[in-house]
Amino acid sequence: MSSPVAAACTAVAKRSGPRLASLSCRLCGAPSDPSPVAVCEHCLGPLEPVYDPARRLPTRAEIEARPRSIWRYREWLPILDAPVVSEDTGFTPLLDAPALARALGVRRALVKNDAVSHPSCSFKDRVVAVALNAAVGLGLDTVGCASTGNLANSVAAQAARAGLAAWIFVPEDLEVGKIVGTAIYGPRLVRVKGTYDDVNRLCAQVADRFGWGLVNLNLRGYYGEGSKTMAHEIGEQLGWRTPDAVIAPMAGGSLLTKLDKGFRELRTAGLLDGAAPRMYGAQAAGCAPIVNLVASGGEKIEPVQPRTIARSIAIGNPADGRFAAKAIRTSGGGAAAVTDEELVAGIRLLAETTGVFGETAAGVTVAAALKLAREGQLRPTDELVLCITGNGLKTVEAVLPALPEAPVVAGKLREVAALVEASR
Amino acid sequence: MSSPVAAACTAVAKRSGPRLASLSCRLCGAPSDPSPVAVCEHCLGPLEPVYDPARRLPTRAEIEARPRSIWRYREWLPILDAPVVSEDTGFTPLLDAPALARALGVRRALVKNDAVSHPSCSFKDRVVAVALNAAVGLGLDTVGCASTGNLANSVAAQAARAGLAAWIFVPEDLEVGKIVGTAIYGPRLVRVKGTYDDVNRLCAQVADRFGWGLVNLNLRGYYGEGSKTMAHEIGEQLGWRTPDAVIAPMAGGSLLTKLDKGFRELRTAGLLDGAAPRMYGAQAAGCAPIVNLVASGGEKIEPVQPRTIARSIAIGNPADGRFAAKAIRTSGGGAAAVTDEELVAGIRLLAETTGVFGETAAGVTVAAALKLAREGQLRPTDELVLCITGNGLKTVEAVLPALPEAPVVAGKLREVAALVEASR
Repeated sequence: MSSPVAAACTAVAKRSGPRLASLSCRLCGAPSDPSPVAVCEHCLGPLEPVYDPARRLPTRAEIEARPRSIWRYREWLPILDAPVVSEDTGFTPLLDAPALARALGVRRALVKNDAVSHPSCSFKDRVVAVALNAAVGLGLDTVGCASTGNLANSVAAQAARAGLAAWIFVPEDLEVGKIVGTAIYGPRLVRVKGTYDDVNRLCAQVADRFGWGLVNLNLRGYYGEGSKTMAHEIGEQLGWRTPDAVIAPMAGGSLLTKLDKGFRELRTAGLLDGAAPRMYGAQAAGCAPIVNLVASGGEKIEPVQPRTIARSIAIGNPADGRFAAKAIRTSGGGAAAVTDEELVAGIRLLAETTGVFGETAAGVTVAAALKLAREGQLRPTDELVLCITGNGLKTVEAVLPALPEAPVVAGKLREVAALVEASR
Repeated sequence: MSSPVAAACTAVAKRSGPRLASLSCRLCGAPSDPSPVAVCEHCLGPLEPVYDPARRLPTRAEIEARPRSIWRYREWLPILDAPVVSEDTGFTPLLDAPALARALGVRRALVKNDAVSHPSCSFKDRVVAVALNAAVGLGLDTVGCASTGNLANSVAAQAARAGLAAWIFVPEDLEVGKIVGTAIYGPRLVRVKGTYDDVNRLCAQVADRFGWGLVNLNLRGYYGEGSKTMAHEIGEQLGWRTPDAVIAPMAGGSLLTKLDKGFRELRTAGLLDGAAPRMYGAQAAGCAPIVNLVASGGEKIEPVQPRTIARSIAIGNPADGRFAAKAIRTSGGGAAAVTDEELVAGIRLLAETTGVFGETAAGVTVAAALKLAREGQLRPTDELVLCITGNGLKTVEAVLPALPEAPVVAGKLREVAALVEASR
């Protein structure tokens, strides 16, 4: 955006908010003007942005020359002018993890580390950056969300910075880190008795009643597209090619669906070499409706009552569950559910082999990868990318009981010598 | 490092560890071969690497073309070959903070956000990346540290990834996030009764006895240089120029000293335009020996007994305190100490204006900036960079009592309507 015309567009957008892509229904195809609307008014299907197929796409070199944020892939995002808020989110590390590859028994493992996403240490920063620009574009001055924690953190953080009011709804019993990591930004935070699914139902009514932009409800058509940038970055960071396989945690099912879409659209544009990756989804055994759907081969999610310490992915009735299951099947991938004990071991394995401390969902992802590798679904020849979506500092309660008690000494060298001796 | 010769050097380094710069005493100038040694053997002064004044320095364009890590400034780091571990640390966001600038009453405020440093969410990742490469270069297979928390997290994370054994010593009563954020990586973690200064004294003996590389003791000459990269990045991210003023928290005093050095050396190399920034240091009133030294105009630190919730900077006898005070005076800057109440308000102000959730040290930095601005030391014409060195998720205990209790609702729309009504 460096020409005078582009600069003028940016200036206009800064005043009135950026222009947004139109929406259309993913099921019946009915179009919808840009608006804060949750579902298709004809068939209640989910909405997706429509991109002009004749728009000029950038080259690899053009993308590489842009700032390192999600907006370097702006031709695949529904914000048509330059973003006016959250300009600097995205471009997290992709790190080689040879010790983890050995533990999994795959040729190569890489970790996409959204645990250090700016500003709020989860991949939700990507979707919220898109949603808040959509909110500004629609002239909304209040935003919000129904959240299991990470989304709450991110909406609170980015709304505060953008000067937007925020109303944030979470289950009553979230982890302390996620409550504090939301409240610190000064939003209106409301705890709701019940599960995430109860919170979500309430928020659907709230969106209708108050005309707010609830990022994962009536801005969902825009919001979800932000997740694609995790795939875009992985492809670019691998040197503009695809990995063999990608594994990600599944909550509402949107992330996996959008990762699949992100790889496909950069491949279609001729920017990524290699086949479409096989997509693998991970859930906690105590809340595995999408894994169940993949296993049953059915078409319709059977909602479950969540019972797991992996609260950030404890969604019993996932909005995009069937699309995630479809992406898994179509890509030739798979899905696995793991116990709470296995997920804690997964967090530790990730930390000990890569230096990355992920939250419960990360433990689910690593433990599921281990299970899929042992089952032979992940293969010894695979190059696997593990999507780590949130930071372990947010869920310390989950691992605390499993960690060894650290010895206490009074500060004498001989006490340390005794510990060293005992450790041999 | 892309020529065949460079590639061969890298291959050698991968086997035997990189070559290291020699050291010399900052006080008496006595030289010292690369070795794990804490202080000058002649005068007990601190050691610093010696750089070949005839070495070829890169241009701005050459640096910009390198990977975005601390190693893009490798000509100013004491690791002479390519790094063999922790290759990807550094290059955190520098974000414009107009709302914070208004609150402070300065022309422009920017936040250097090491709260999202990879992998362990603090600026200590920079120094540890350098120290672990030094450890490998010296043939050491066990590393460790004396730490108030952030350093413990970073050594544990990076040692785990590098496959080095780690012994980590911390005060007994650290925050839960910092204990878990260390223990998760599986190091030998030892809690020591007493203050950080007691831990530090013990570790000086430990380093002598076991021949380990304790990053902030006998690898300190290498370790400290990593902090300079925060200044290097700020300069580059501002478009290769200096800001008017920089404020950073002070614990041992090394960070501020090295920031000052980092700006000076890039200016000397002709890479940064503008005057040397005025350096400002922030401490908690309950542990402010360096602020006291700046105020007294003296030469010698008077150790104090720390009494503050800002544990990460609670060092009563700071190793580099007099150098920090000197950098502050020479640059025309200043220093301020703030109460625990003020630091909590500082954390909230930062979060509410920028979306960045910093730890207690960040609150100290923001609150001190506010104080210095009110005193007129920071000026309305200033462009100020605030160095945010650690993540608020590590110190939730500090802010929890100050945050409003979030209301709990049963999931009925009318309950939300009542909250909305009450909020108007």
